[in-house]
Amino acid sequence: MVPPPTIAQQLAAKQREISVAEFFERNRQILGFDNPQRSLLTTVKEAADNSLDGCEEAGILPEVLVQISKEGEDRLRVAVEDNGPGILRREIPNVFARLLYGSRFHSNRQARGQQGIGISAAVLYANLTTARPAKIVSKVEEEEAAHVLELFLDTQKNQPRVASEDVMLWDRPHGTRIELVLRARYVRGRQSPYEYLRGTAIVNPHARIVLVEPDGTRVTFERATTDLPPPAKETLPHPYGLELGELGYFLKGTKRPTLLEFLSKDLQGVSARAARDVLAQSELPPGRTPASVQGEDQERLLRALHAVSLLSPSADCLSPIGALLIKRGLRNVLGEVRPDFFAPPVSRAPKVRGGFPFMVEVGVVYGGGLPADQPVQILRFANRVPLLFQQGACAITNAISSLDWRRYGLEQKGGSGIPSGPALILVHVASTKIPFTSEAKEAIAEDPEIDRELTLALQVAARHLRTHLSRRTRRDLAGAKFEIILKILPKLAEKTSHLVGKPVPDLTPVVTRIMDVVHLEATPVADPQGVRVPVHVVNYTPRARVLELFVEVPPEAMPGAAFDPAPDGTDPALGRVWWTLPKLPPSGRTQLELRFPPQTDLEASDLDWYVAGIDEAHLLGADPLPGDWDVRLPRTIVEAAEAAAAESGGTGTGEEEVDYDAAESSASASEDD
Amino acid sequence: MVPPPTIAQQLAAKQREISVAEFFERNRQILGFDNPQRSLLTTVKEAADNSLDGCEEAGILPEVLVQISKEGEDRLRVAVEDNGPGILRREIPNVFARLLYGSRFHSNRQARGQQGIGISAAVLYANLTTARPAKIVSKVEEEEAAHVLELFLDTQKNQPRVASEDVMLWDRPHGTRIELVLRARYVRGRQSPYEYLRGTAIVNPHARIVLVEPDGTRVTFERATTDLPPPAKETLPHPYGLELGELGYFLKGTKRPTLLEFLSKDLQGVSARAARDVLAQSELPPGRTPASVQGEDQERLLRALHAVSLLSPSADCLSPIGALLIKRGLRNVLGEVRPDFFAPPVSRAPKVRGGFPFMVEVGVVYGGGLPADQPVQILRFANRVPLLFQQGACAITNAISSLDWRRYGLEQKGGSGIPSGPALILVHVASTKIPFTSEAKEAIAEDPEIDRELTLALQVAARHLRTHLSRRTRRDLAGAKFEIILKILPKLAEKTSHLVGKPVPDLTPVVTRIMDVVHLEATPVADPQGVRVPVHVVNYTPRARVLELFVEVPPEAMPGAAFDPAPDGTDPALGRVWWTLPKLPPSGRTQLELRFPPQTDLEASDLDWYVAGIDEAHLLGADPLPGDWDVRLPRTIVEAAEAAAAESGGTGTGEEEVDYDAAESSASASEDD
Repeated sequence: MVPPPTIAQQLAAKQREISVAEFFERNRQILGFDNPQRSLLTTVKEAADNSLDGCEEAGILPEVLVQISKEGEDRLRVAVEDNGPGILRREIPNVFARLLYGSRFHSNRQARGQQGIGISAAVLYANLTTARPAKIVSKVEEEEAAHVLELFLDTQKNQPRVASEDVMLWDRPHGTRIELVLRARYVRGRQSPYEYLRGTAIVNPHARIVLVEPDGTRVTFERATTDLPPPAKETLPHPYGLELGELGYFLKGTKRPTLLEFLSKDLQGVSARAARDVLAQSELPPGRTPASVQGEDQERLLRALHAVSLLSPSADCLSPIGALLIKRGLRNVLGEVRPDFFAPPVSRAPKVRGGFPFMVEVGVVYGGGLPADQPVQILRFANRVPLLFQQGACAITNAISSLDWRRYGLEQKGGSGIPSGPALILVHVASTKIPFTSEAKEAIAEDPEIDRELTLALQVAARHLRTHLSRRTRRDLAGAKFEIILKILPKLAEKTSHLVGKPVPDLTPVVTRIMDVVHLEATPVADPQGVRVPVHVVNYTPRARVLELFVEVPPEAMPGAAFDPAPDGTDPALGRVWWTLPKLPPSGRTQLELRFPPQTDLEASDLDWYVAGIDEAHLLGADPLPGDWDVRLPRTIVEAAEAAAAESGGTGTGEEEVDYDAAESSASASEDD
Repeated sequence: MVPPPTIAQQLAAKQREISVAEFFERNRQILGFDNPQRSLLTTVKEAADNSLDGCEEAGILPEVLVQISKEGEDRLRVAVEDNGPGILRREIPNVFARLLYGSRFHSNRQARGQQGIGISAAVLYANLTTARPAKIVSKVEEEEAAHVLELFLDTQKNQPRVASEDVMLWDRPHGTRIELVLRARYVRGRQSPYEYLRGTAIVNPHARIVLVEPDGTRVTFERATTDLPPPAKETLPHPYGLELGELGYFLKGTKRPTLLEFLSKDLQGVSARAARDVLAQSELPPGRTPASVQGEDQERLLRALHAVSLLSPSADCLSPIGALLIKRGLRNVLGEVRPDFFAPPVSRAPKVRGGFPFMVEVGVVYGGGLPADQPVQILRFANRVPLLFQQGACAITNAISSLDWRRYGLEQKGGSGIPSGPALILVHVASTKIPFTSEAKEAIAEDPEIDRELTLALQVAARHLRTHLSRRTRRDLAGAKFEIILKILPKLAEKTSHLVGKPVPDLTPVVTRIMDVVHLEATPVADPQGVRVPVHVVNYTPRARVLELFVEVPPEAMPGAAFDPAPDGTDPALGRVWWTLPKLPPSGRTQLELRFPPQTDLEASDLDWYVAGIDEAHLLGADPLPGDWDVRLPRTIVEAAEAAAAESGGTGTGEEEVDYDAAESSASASEDD
């Protein structure tokens, strides 16, 4: 007789393998398929990201069409079509209906897709909720016809099942189209395909994206440039942050015959000299076979790799957005809401974590029509992909919440949490491998290295914000005073003169005595001939002034712009223009004019005015020249500053700015103050 | 000559399969191995959860030992040992060193582990960071010796590799021990193994857990009960929320010969009658073979299953904490911090999402030593496991943040977000399948069904809080008034009497006229004989009162407690005791006493006093009897209430409470007010 099974035997009988597809089918929330609304977004996102990655890898300017249509009560049909290179027939089933299959997991460079899960997960979800196959059409350039396949994902085996197959003529040279019917819900607004594609268009200005909504509305995000971003290159792993186990795999897997060659050719940042240093420190012979380095030897080798100073990771495996596009993107996302202030976008140098290079970019805008009594808006991007869900779980949000924004002029209860105020913070993390918190790729996991870079980048932007806010406060006060004086004084003077029967006196010297500022005023005026910006500069100080005037115009407004008088210099790419003004005696004034073609979209807040040659305390309507303007200043000002420095022993008021005013004031100290 | 590969061919050449272990190795943050601190917690958590699951499955009272010791600069050795049933030799390698292998994924009942990933992920992480094998010791009862295996996880194949094997004698009848050396960092405090095990002990009072910290400190969480929670039973899938694809698998996989049998025997909640209704609605013959139901037929069948009214899911696949243990657990977690108020814990009936039953439990405490100017503390649990990370991404947090707590008496900026105040909110979600946001199982994904239940449960608890807070405000005001009167009146009377040379009058009638309350005072006094609680009740109302007095004592304080006079009734399990007090004339007073054995841990806030027979406006130091006290009231009061109701036409002040005062006041209306 067989004895009854023991408890351990009973439990053992239940043990079994779980197919990765079964696992994700049951845990589809992990992949971003929590509910009908999010499932739609995830589907669109995975398909569109694949299209963009495919186009960029093939050097093609992307055209992506997203069509969403109603297909029953709670069902939608989603079709995403691109002009990418197409996919070979033999790869189509695996690419679209097999989890953990892809081309980008093993490549060490920035891409949207990394996991080989996304689009197959969408197919799995469609199969599950509507029992309908995915329809794929794909054509490669070298073939006449397109392949048309209908696919299911067999979850028990995690393998594609081809339900039907055909070929067809397609009116494009190459491209791919995927069509899915899934349980889904279409909404516009927050966390919608619309928001996602708009965000994508902002940071991918080389892509043309068309969205057709279920009601037939067609939204086109036109490309803003025909320049493809420089392709992100594959790189070798960098030793910083490499784990012992990973080093072990590399040592076992390499084809290099010697340890020296392995170190200097299979790893990034290790020069031949550094490789020798590493070997010396780890007491290993250069000629040893890599695979033979194990145990204690391996640990010493890793310690040496972490101790020896190596070259920084190369940035060419990354594709940052760049300061210019961040600013343009922010203008774009804000649309009608014209903020008062754009902090100069911060784009930090690449760093390494766990062998993978990464970099952080930050943009901050403030004021204008942004709501003042709500938490600041946060725009998160990872590898040029907008992150719309799980904001609360994201390292970006955490870095923002951990900063004490009260020090930078925003409200924040208790000095932590998301600050409140009319501000918007854009953060982009680019990496050859983003550590997402889950396969849905909606939030970046906590990581000390990334957190440090995020914090540093946010601090730089926040300092700019603080400077702006304190300047604004001072300027508002001075402006209010100025306005009162300019309004009331003339009336007072008129009345008094009338009473005493004397002519009205010139008030400029009085205003000068009270205000002691150089005042700049520039307001765009649109007329059929174009947009004119008359600029008035008045010296309400008791001394003669030699000033340099600088303006930063949105670079897209530069073509066709005219300046009167002719500027001393321009930098059209950055939208910068500058002049040396004629010497202005006390109460002296001068006028300039900027002219732009008709339909130029320009408001006062789009123009940033800077003046050199005077201390910012004496400046109204413009700011001192920031340190990052690398323009050659005219001799007059440089010489005056040098002379003053030589005379006074070289004191300056700012770290980055030459104290122009000091030069002047030393020559006329008796008049000053 | 071979032509150069086209772009599509180049891209295709890069396509390949990704091993699930490789995937998780590279994305270990998804599994909870973000950084050395969290990696330690995740390791302890996965091992301890497995121990608890194993013990409970085998009906063993769990004893879990967690030893953490230093093993080099940034390395720790973690050993977790249990008295569970042990694991058969042949299963050991797969259980500990193969991802997606386990016994609980396919079972439909509440368990801590669900995925077959956790402990193998810890082994993977240890291999990766220190290149050391995991050491497993396991003994099953029916064998003499324990098996000792050293294991690696081969990530390219996702298969275990046995590095060494042995047998040994072990001084336990059965059990399992796992030892890992990993890159990790030990901290106490927030998000530490200590916090995790303490939280586990709170909601698993049947487990004995010992933690040995790296400095040798030994912390023991003793078990509070020797009753194992009722074992969660395996159940069938419930049709509510079932997707078409899932129904398809079930139809294909079932062994039932007919559709009728399939419906009534393979699904939960479908009676034979409901099955016939479903078949009628979907126009399918009862005798049809399940596997033959496809396409349109399948869709009609699913629609009918969702339309026909079915039995609710059975709760016996779930293992809720229960109201009593929630309250005890909260007392435990608060330790020295004695809150003023415990809202009656809310334990909602099970519901279904996507075929899986789930239920929500909520406990709220307020006041005492909890910090008043900070966000409320949130304790999250899923299947009796504390959730320590990713609070911001969790559906529990989101449900709390979405409620307008200002309406319930807590501060909350803008009516959303985590409220502030001296409160603590405990939430437990139990389910046969918790939808976690990632494999690290630290946050519950958004789900409309779960969110609804969370919101309803939180609202019930919040309403109790509001009642308490408004009562407290009223009572504080009345109490302050009372104190002033009792302090100042006698002094005034004394002084006046002295001045006019008359004897000091009895002030009780004056106090009565001003206060018009029944006053209860009860303060525990500890002495070597035990803890005494003298109770004074004074009738400062102008009418005679027949009152019922009720007290709720922590049930653990009931053994050995004595009451004088003898109560009219007790419920030791719930810690409830009640008396009918002698009729108190105006200014009448009475005294009772509660006595507890020495060392009883009891403070005034541990005793909840309730009085029936008087309206709460006339009650100071006690609350009206809550509606959930299902005690038989003495005839005197019931009759008085009935008489009053008959007379006045049956008006009451509360929904749940008999208006005792109305009974009385109708008899002495002229005196009242």
